[in-house]
Parts: sequence; C-alpha cells; structure tokens
Amino acid sequence: AKEEHENYFNSTFLDRRSDKRTDTNWLNSKHTHASSVYIIFSNLCPLVSLIGTKDSAQEPEIKLCRLQHDDVKGYLSSPDEVSLIFLGVETQLNNPCSAEQDDGLVAWFALNVKNLSTDQFERKFEGCYFLQPPMPALLQLVSTEAGILAQARSVLAWHNRYKFCPTCGGKTIIEDGGYKRTCVVKGCPSLQGIHNTSYPRVDPVVIMIIVHPDGNHCLLGRKKTFPPGMFSCLAGFIEPGETTEDAVRREVKEESGVKVGHVQYVSCQPWPMPSSLMIGCLGVAISTEITVDKTEIEEARWFTREQVVEALIKGNQHTLVVPPRHAIAHQLIKHWIGMNANL
Amino acid sequence: AKEEHENYFNSTFLDRRSDKRTDTNWLNSKHTHASSVYIIFSNLCPLVSLIGTKDSAQEPEIKLCRLQHDDVKGYLSSPDEVSLIFLGVETQLNNPCSAEQDDGLVAWFALNVKNLSTDQFERKFEGCYFLQPPMPALLQLVSTEAGILAQARSVLAWHNRYKFCPTCGGKTIIEDGGYKRTCVVKGCPSLQGIHNTSYPRVDPVVIMIIVHPDGNHCLLGRKKTFPPGMFSCLAGFIEPGETTEDAVRREVKEESGVKVGHVQYVSCQPWPMPSSLMIGCLGVAISTEITVDKTEIEEARWFTREQVVEALIKGNQHTLVVPPRHAIAHQLIKHWIGMNANL
Ligand SMILES: Nc1ncnc2c1ncn2[C@@H]1O[C@H](COP(=O)(O)O)[C@@H](O)[C@H]1O
Ligand SMILES: Nc1ncnc2c1ncn2[C@@H]1O[C@H](COP(=O)(O)O)[C@@H](O)[C@H]1O
Ligand SMILES: [Mg+2]
Ligand SMILES: [Mg+2]
Ligand SMILES: [Mg+2]
Ligand SMILES: [Mg+2]
Ligand SMILES: [Mg+2]
Ligand SMILES: [Mg+2]
Ligand SMILES: [Zn+2]
Ligand SMILES: [Zn+2]
Repeated sequence: AKEEHENYFNSTFLDRRSDKRTDTNWLNSKHTHASSVYIIFSNLCPLVSLIGTKDSAQEPEIKLCRLQHDDVKGYLSSPDEVSLIFLGVETQLNNPCSAEQDDGLVAWFALNVKNLSTDQFERKFEGCYFLQPPMPALLQLVSTEAGILAQARSVLAWHNRYKFCPTCGGKTIIEDGGYKRTCVVKGCPSLQGIHNTSYPRVDPVVIMIIVHPDGNHCLLGRKKTFPPGMFSCLAGFIEPGETTEDAVRREVKEESGVKVGHVQYVSCQPWPMPSSLMIGCLGVAISTEITVDKTEIEEARWFTREQVVEALIKGNQHTLVVPPRHAIAHQLIKHWIGMNANL
Repeated sequence: AKEEHENYFNSTFLDRRSDKRTDTNWLNSKHTHASSVYIIFSNLCPLVSLIGTKDSAQEPEIKLCRLQHDDVKGYLSSPDEVSLIFLGVETQLNNPCSAEQDDGLVAWFALNVKNLSTDQFERKFEGCYFLQPPMPALLQLVSTEAGILAQARSVLAWHNRYKFCPTCGGKTIIEDGGYKRTCVVKGCPSLQGIHNTSYPRVDPVVIMIIVHPDGNHCLLGRKKTFPPGMFSCLAGFIEPGETTEDAVRREVKEESGVKVGHVQYVSCQPWPMPSSLMIGCLGVAISTEITVDKTEIEEARWFTREQVVEALIKGNQHTLVVPPRHAIAHQLIKHWIGMNANL
C-alpha cells in the first residue's frame, strides 16, 4: 500500500467536530470564550502577517492572524454583511486543567466581512494585512495552516454566492455553525426532505498527468493566462453522471485531442478558489497527435523526461516552467518522474 | 496497474460532445432530426419498458423508452414546466451514408416534465411506464443504459432544484444545451467572471469498506431505513476544504467511533439521487471499539470474512444481507473479500 501524499492545503490541526454544529449552547459559550480563535476575511481575503524576518527573502512565509472575540464582536451583529462559521477545535487540548465547567477545547471560528474598512483594521493590528489578491499570495501560508484556510475560505465563499434559495429564490438563514442555509419561505420544496441546496458545495475536478505510450514523455498544456513558459497538467470539472476516470479521458480528449486508456488515482487536494476538490490522476495515452481546444488551452505539448527533470529538479526554466510545489499539478509531475525525495 | 472497476451507472455509449452545446444551429437541426433519440422523465422518473419476458422473473430488466421529436414536441414550448438537455451522440455512427449535409451523428436528448399527464402518455406508448418510485426500481435498468440514465437524471434534478440564481434570487435561463443556467438580472455578481452557481452540481461522497486491524473483519453499518438484516458500507459527504482520505477518517469516526489510518482509493460510481459521485475507498482501522452515532446509523458491527462470504457469495441472508451488486458498497465488500470472479 502506497503512502498518502501530503499536498499543500491538505494539512489541518483542527477536528471539525460536526456534532457541535447543532449544539447552540456550546457554540454560544465558545463564541465569547477567551481561548477561542477567530480568523477574519475581507471579501474572502484573509488577514495574515509575516512570520519573522526571513534571511532568504525568496519564499516569505505568512500566517493567519488569530483574533479574539473582542476584536471581532462589532461585526457579528450584521448577518447580511457578515458570515460566521465554526471551523472545529484544536486536536491538542490547551488547558486541560482550566476552570471547572470548561471542556478545555480550543474552538476556531472564521468570519467574512463585506466592505470592511480594511485600513482601519490593519492600523489596529500592527503587522497584519489582508492578502490581496488571494492568489498566488495564499500559497505563502505556512503549510500547517493551509488546510484551515482551505476549509474556511471554501465555506465562506459558498455563503458569499449562495445567499438565496436556488429552489424558490427566497431568503435563507445560516444554521449548523455555518454548514447549512435554510430557506425561510414557507412551503418551499427545499424544506421537504434533505436537499443539497442547503449544504456547502464542493466541485470535484480531475487533474491529470498523461503519459505518452512510449513511457518517456508527458502531456502538459498552458492557458493564455499562465506566466510565460509555464505548462501544467490538464484539468477539468467532473460532470454529472460521470466517473473520475471517464472525466480524465473526456477532458484530455476535449482539450488536447489525445486519447487516454488506463487511468489511476494518485492523490487529491482541496482548492479553495472557491471550493474545488482536485482529484489527481495518472493516465496512459493511447494516441499521440495533439489538437488543441483553443478556447481553453493555448498550447499542449509532449515533454521528455529530461525536460521535466530539468525544470522540476534543477529549476532550469529554459524550455519549461512547472507550477509551484503547492499545486497538485507539481506533485503529479513529480510522481511521474518517480522521485519520492523531498525536492 | 489494477484494472478499473465497472460499476453500475458507469457505462455509457454516448460521447458528451460538449463542443456541440454552444453550437445552436447544430443542436436545432438535431432537435428535429429523425435519427435523434429523446428520453423523457416525469418528475425525474424515467419512461421505461420491460425487456422481453424473462423466464426467471427474479431480476426483470427494463430499458429506457426511445422517443422521437414528434412524440415530445408538444412539451418543448413551456420552459417553466420542462427542462431539455443534450446528452451526447452515439459513439457508433448510425447512417454514415445518409443524406448529404448530415454528419451521421445520432444525438440524444432528455427532458423532464413537471405535472405530466402520465396516464395519457402511457396509454399512447403501449408497454411503457414511468418508474415510480425511482429507487430501487432504477437498478433494474439494463446496465448499458445505466450511465445515460445517471447523466440525464443528475442534470435534470439540478434544473429541478436550481431554477433561481443563488447569488441574487433572480430568474435564470437554460443555456449550453442544458449545462448552464444564467441569471437574467442585470448587474448580478454571478455574471462577472465564472462561478459554479451557473453549472450543474456534483456532490462528492466517500463510501468505504473499513478493515479491522486483524485483517479478518470489516466494519458495516445499517440505517433505520434499510431492509431487515441489511448492513452496508459507511458513507458521507466530503466537506469543503477536505481531502477524500480525511473525509473517510472523519465520517467513520463520526458514525462508528472507529479510528482509521491508511486509506486507499478503489473505484467510484455516479449516483443520480440526485447527483453524487460516490468515491469508493478501503480504510484500515487503528481502533476497534464501536460507538454509534444514533442520528445517522442504527447499528454498526464488525463482520468476519466468513459471514461476509456467506452473504455475498452464497446468498445466505441469515446473519447479514448485503446491498445489491449495483451499489458500489457491494463492489467494495467484494473487493475486500478479494474475489475478482464475476459473482
Ligand atoms: N462548477 C463549475 N465551476 C466553474 N466552471 C465550470 C463548472 N462546471 C463547468 N464549468 C465550465 O468549465 C469551464 C472550465 O473548463 P474545465 O475546467 O476544463 O472543465 C469553465 O469555463 C466553465 O464554462
Ligand atoms: N450535499 C449534501 N446533500 C445532502 N445532505 C448533505 C449534504 N452535505 C451535507 N449533508 C448532510 O449530511 C447528512 C448525511 O450525512 P453523511 O452522508 O454521513 O455526510 C444529511 O442528512 C445532511 O444533513
Ligand atoms: Mg469541462
Ligand atoms: Mg476542459
Ligand atoms: Mg480544463
Ligand atoms: Mg455521516
Ligand atoms: Mg457528513
Ligand atoms: Mg453517512
Ligand atoms: Zn426556498
Ligand atoms: Zn443573479
């Protein structure tokens, strides 16, 4: 049995404790608890600060600013402007022997504020700033916090775009610690039985490294919006009624004209822009001619193993630039190259 | 490399041809073309008919009724009551040497009608009937058509529940051959950039066979709604910002109290009730005590290999009833038992 891959955005130190989402008393007491941690977003951009001062300024690392109830309580009263969600509790107990009726659980919450006065906020919390734009800046986050960011941003982005009931167009209210929106319109069909309209959306996406029949080339493509020279794995949304494996074959055919036979799952990665689950696969091509779908892809090309090693390991950006290690595309390319060392 | 599993609902003989979804001229000409095939749903229940008359009445097989434009054209003019989608074209050309300007592609469409007079319809098409309720009756469909049913029903169910724009509550119109709903409200944020609010929803779900640390037991659970004696694999929705593997660990812990270590992908299955992607995994338990979450699960139990073989292969329903072979749960249990023969 192969070991699981540790992709960026996969790691968290929170236990979601979904059982607490409907425990209003517990949530209320944690809301105001001194040990509780709040992270805040302005229009889905998180408040962060730099970690230390790095000698090597190449890859500056940032961390989430951990606020307290007092810091954010002014925002919690306007539900049209603010979404608040419960993220979970730290897996390690903090104060096991604190006050009597305290369970010692350190609860985390996240809130997104629309039209926040960010200047004012940043003045109040020295050294803190709202990441703008979130990408690629988000990839600077210390990897231990990336999973928390992924969870928070995905759910908050859902609240941002799904304020109304898709079934009747009515207003909805937030329930279950931020994991449910319920229609307030009496008699709405969304209230009879359980429907996905009330729950956060996760979009499954396939992303794949495609291997040439000769075993020594892989297929990479570039979008017009990519930085110069960069090629990455092809990817696309899984459609309704489709398997992961068929989605790989369909998307590769659509985007590059290449036919794929066998497909194998490698690893996955949540991608919080806004809420995808990237399902990483390796596929074996059974044809080699490339015909690019120009609406999506600017160019697709077979790269040799040597070209890929040159770019991936030696950092030589002459013939090829690969995505950063935080992207599952990078990990899939690395997986194909067959190097398990920590590059 | 292991062979891919052929789960029920995975097989289709249509090529989705997403490039044709925006080709209005092509779609219009296929709509009225004599070779085009329409399948029809009444409130998401498909029109079907029995295949032949089976000697063994145990497992009657049904097929989708293939209608023509003439049969359905009366319904196509009321977009509030009817959703029409393009499914794809048959992978085998039908009439390569038909009329001149004909590309020979056999297009399939599906429509769902609200409040259809089903009696009238069934009288007109002798031997045809609307499946009611769809489950478990849908599992009687001939397996070659199950993938088409999965695609059609998932997309139609989306149109059924997502008629309004979740971002502003406004009305939407169907575009792209049924694969897009666009808000008609000027200035709606859903119209700036690309948002998942316009596209069909697919809900990724983990479903898992959990193996005891001793390797000789597996963990199965039953919901209150299951038929007497039936136990199945635990399952649950993947949450935002979560990997497949972590979702397996979280759901098993939530539902049974059992801790899971290593997780391995096995195979997946679209499940069109209404639009899930069941991601089948095998997980290895690292604890054995069971504490059931009574809101979701009535009972969870470790079953021995012998008990499972007895139920799965010998059909002995004394200590255990397993789900039918059409369910990926059945295939995951079989996968664990390690029998690759066609049971
Ligand atoms: N859930 C979704 N979110 C965003 N775009 C989608 C979604 N589903 C389908 N699309 C369409 O898929 C295109 C991207 O193509 P691909 O990622 O290759 O499937 C977008 O430009 C949309 O037109
Ligand atoms: N997309 C979704 N569709 C339906 N129910 C959901 C969804 N997401 C979360 N749920 C909740 O998950 C419950 C089923 O639990 P599970 O399948 O174990 O995750 C349902 O009763 C809902 O409360
Ligand atoms: Mg696509
Ligand atoms: Mg594509
Ligand atoms: Mg793509
Ligand atoms: Mg559950
Ligand atoms: Mg769940
Ligand atoms: Mg469940
Ligand atoms: Zn509603
Ligand atoms: Zn709108």
